[in-house]
Amino acid sequence: MPTIKVESQLQYDVRQPTNMLFKIAAAQTDRQQVRNTQLTIDPEITIETLEVGLEGNTMQRVSVQPCQLTLHYEAEVDAVAQPTDPGNIPQTNVGNLPTEVLPYLNPSRYCESDLLGRFAFEEFGQMQPGLLRVQAICDWVNEHLDYTPGSTGVTTTAADVVLQRTGVCRDYAHLAIALCRGIGVPARYVSGYAAELQPPDFHGFMEAYLGDQWYFFDPTKLASVGGLVRIATGRDAADVAFATITGDAGLTSKMVSAVFL
Amino acid sequence: MPTIKVESQLQYDVRQPTNMLFKIAAAQTDRQQVRNTQLTIDPEITIETLEVGLEGNTMQRVSVQPCQLTLHYEAEVDAVAQPTDPGNIPQTNVGNLPTEVLPYLNPSRYCESDLLGRFAFEEFGQMQPGLLRVQAICDWVNEHLDYTPGSTGVTTTAADVVLQRTGVCRDYAHLAIALCRGIGVPARYVSGYAAELQPPDFHGFMEAYLGDQWYFFDPTKLASVGGLVRIATGRDAADVAFATITGDAGLTSKMVSAVFL
Amino acid sequence: MPTIKVESQLQYDVRQPTNMLFKIAAAQTDRQQVRNTQLTIDPEITIETLEVGLEGNTMQRVSVQPCQLTLHYEAEVDAVAQPTDPGNIPQTNVGNLPTEVLPYLNPSRYCESDLLGRFAFEEFGQMQPGLLRVQAICDWVNEHLDYTPGSTGVTTTAADVVLQRTGVCRDYAHLAIALCRGIGVPARYVSGYAAELQPPDFHGFMEAYLGDQWYFFDPTKLASVGGLVRIATGRDAADVAFATITGDAGLTSKMVSAVFL
Amino acid sequence: MPTIKVESQLQYDVRQPTNMLFKIAAAQTDRQQVRNTQLTIDPEITIETLEVGLEGNTMQRVSVQPCQLTLHYEAEVDAVAQPTDPGNIPQTNVGNLPTEVLPYLNPSRYCESDLLGRFAFEEFGQMQPGLLRVQAICDWVNEHLDYTPGSTGVTTTAADVVLQRTGVCRDYAHLAIALCRGIGVPARYVSGYAAELQPPDFHGFMEAYLGDQWYFFDPTKLASVGGLVRIATGRDAADVAFATITGDAGLTSKMVSAVFL
Repeated sequence: MPTIKVESQLQYDVRQPTNMLFKIAAAQTDRQQVRNTQLTIDPEITIETLEVGLEGNTMQRVSVQPCQLTLHYEAEVDAVAQPTDPGNIPQTNVGNLPTEVLPYLNPSRYCESDLLGRFAFEEFGQMQPGLLRVQAICDWVNEHLDYTPGSTGVTTTAADVVLQRTGVCRDYAHLAIALCRGIGVPARYVSGYAAELQPPDFHGFMEAYLGDQWYFFDPTKLASVGGLVRIATGRDAADVAFATITGDAGLTSKMVSAVFL
Repeated sequence: MPTIKVESQLQYDVRQPTNMLFKIAAAQTDRQQVRNTQLTIDPEITIETLEVGLEGNTMQRVSVQPCQLTLHYEAEVDAVAQPTDPGNIPQTNVGNLPTEVLPYLNPSRYCESDLLGRFAFEEFGQMQPGLLRVQAICDWVNEHLDYTPGSTGVTTTAADVVLQRTGVCRDYAHLAIALCRGIGVPARYVSGYAAELQPPDFHGFMEAYLGDQWYFFDPTKLASVGGLVRIATGRDAADVAFATITGDAGLTSKMVSAVFL
Repeated sequence: MPTIKVESQLQYDVRQPTNMLFKIAAAQTDRQQVRNTQLTIDPEITIETLEVGLEGNTMQRVSVQPCQLTLHYEAEVDAVAQPTDPGNIPQTNVGNLPTEVLPYLNPSRYCESDLLGRFAFEEFGQMQPGLLRVQAICDWVNEHLDYTPGSTGVTTTAADVVLQRTGVCRDYAHLAIALCRGIGVPARYVSGYAAELQPPDFHGFMEAYLGDQWYFFDPTKLASVGGLVRIATGRDAADVAFATITGDAGLTSKMVSAVFL
Repeated sequence: MPTIKVESQLQYDVRQPTNMLFKIAAAQTDRQQVRNTQLTIDPEITIETLEVGLEGNTMQRVSVQPCQLTLHYEAEVDAVAQPTDPGNIPQTNVGNLPTEVLPYLNPSRYCESDLLGRFAFEEFGQMQPGLLRVQAICDWVNEHLDYTPGSTGVTTTAADVVLQRTGVCRDYAHLAIALCRGIGVPARYVSGYAAELQPPDFHGFMEAYLGDQWYFFDPTKLASVGGLVRIATGRDAADVAFATITGDAGLTSKMVSAVFL
């Protein structure tokens, strides 16, 4: 069981009274034990910690007056790595999927599985269903996209990416998610830390529901799956922004770190 | 408290073993008491009824062999009508919204509030926040769209509609939802029955979160809010299709009815 | 040299004073000799025939008062069929293309070669340049799309089609054009008659510039290239609508015919 | 008649044999007399000057071996300014438009007048047709967009811009063009020099066909119409890129200047 030290620090120039939602803390789940958490804010104001959904994710919410704000988070995470060679875990028939998994078959803002379904089916429909097919989708995404920072923006979608063939981690994940949903595999977006990611930053990856559980995949192949730490889970990146600002605050500094202990 | 008799009957030509998910039953909520439910299927097969989410919605799931399938649903619903003149319920600050409401601020597949935010803010940002502003959005949608069956399809989005200015009930709802989210009001899609809708059919409308609760709005103005009966709730129409088919089955007949008793 | 008898008849319910532009007459070019043309209109009004561009195309323009309008066109066309087996005519370097051909490398409304360039290059960039590569593009389009009337509309683009994988003749042509431009081959849209097309209708196909001339291709493979008769030429279907109506007139009947004599 | 001194210098790192098309020279037209042209290239290679279309535009074409390339252009332009207060030049009925003007009513890659037609008609359809209505469109574009460098890219279209409400000169022009076409006014894109533009750069603006001629409009209002110098004319920016590179060459320096003499 690897232990990963995660840390992030965000600084903002807050120019008006502003509400801020942060998704930067590692989720406490069956697969992630989070220890020695330190969350500090300067100036000292009340941080409200909210439980989000059923997956153990948390979110921090603050109301801030104009100031120079610094938020620092660190923790140690014992991660139960998923099996490195689970074999071809079968695809679960839609008739047997748990209710709470079903929404992850639906198209979402950045993962238009309704538009990409025929493409997915044509490209991957003939392969044997299961985990290896999801892996094949991730391999395809990895081979057909160029990792190009700046080539996409916050409104770029999977349908954009499948044409333009460039993107960053969120685009890789969005495309793989859309293709999975297109062949009937529930898939969702995970934001997190990634041990030894170069350059260090928050990371975006995906998980697919196979057999009776979720499995992580990183279509960028920039990080080892064993070093992924979940922060937040959503239908796509729309749900997991590390900060949601209502008011007027500019990010002036961002530091992210994740290392194996 | 009006009572509404709702009824629907769907017939399918099932050509292969097929999984079907139905969202046609009225939700049991604080605001809707559902009585005298009858759900019949011919041929007689096991219907699995699933609870969905936290809002009292249910879903029916069946696995069907090739056949001519008929599903019939009826019930009586005592609906607690929302106040007819609630006044200008205030918009709730994002810092005070319940956690489970927050996702309804995010853009979704057919409600691209990220794309429409500036437009929403420019058009409605100067008005006083609250229920009357949401009503003004619905009025704007109603005035600027032409109700034109066939002018849009299942992949049409709010951004499409705001340009082409035509649509049906789902398009009206999508656009109003996207504009609400764009000005910071949580909004979501509701499928349901609508008493005395002409022609009778399933209906799509929306609700917005104001003060500390959700309020129905029907931007099409084709039905009175007092006659709306919730079936399912979602981020947009992607979540609430009345039937989701995995396999091969064609709808051969659809009958929907909703009348005040 | 095959001779093709072409004929079309359009009827309109003209409800207000209306301007109408028709592109239904076979073009007079080096490769098409048009004989025995008959153009009649009922009621008898003045038809203005306009020369369009440099390619021998003509257009008919009328100003009509409210009436039941019938326009009838027929002609015999001696078509110089392009070589049935021209071999691999080479792709012309952009440095040697005639000036008037250059615009057909640019993206257009329904052929977004800027969006599809990377895809085109990835899929076809490794093949030997020339006519056979253009043929390979047309083959790819033919294999990957399903010909499905009603699946697309007048605003559907090549980028839509490459995802949804269905379309009609204009969509096939748009996608092939966009892919050709994406690999540096000038390509344009041609509307016309197609001998023995089933069901008879106006047809949309494409031509690509190779060596020092334009060659016809029909990605739908619904008609033989030897039976294609050019009406109008454009960057895409936006330029060649068979009728452009300004006013209020509804098409009530359309008859099209093309047969080898 | 103002005289404008225009000048531009482009430097490229050419890494492979490359074809380059340049559209940087002022067009010679009835309204622009170009004198004292100097066009130099270093290293000295043959420059092919091509006439483009019917509007007096020229284009330079070169085939370049790997090198550091510098292209310098300068000229003096006597511009016949269009009337500063022409009054409300009437909109020309489509039945009376010259043939060569008609294509500028069609939608193009970045000006989707087919998508924006209803919006244009709703917003501007009730105004009196003519030059003042075109000016009202330009005013609307100017008021509703924020000039924000970096907010848009080379594939951004008028439909994107009308939603996101930000852009640069090409986006302003595209939106105004699409809206003009939407109400039946032929409109096209013009690239050029603009005297005293701050910061100095190539500029993108538009012209609309009214009465029996084309009139310049600059929806950005960053330059006076009297100081606009036409380089190239097209359906939209797709047709008038100042440089089109086929091969491998990176722009390392760009200098543009335009001043009243």
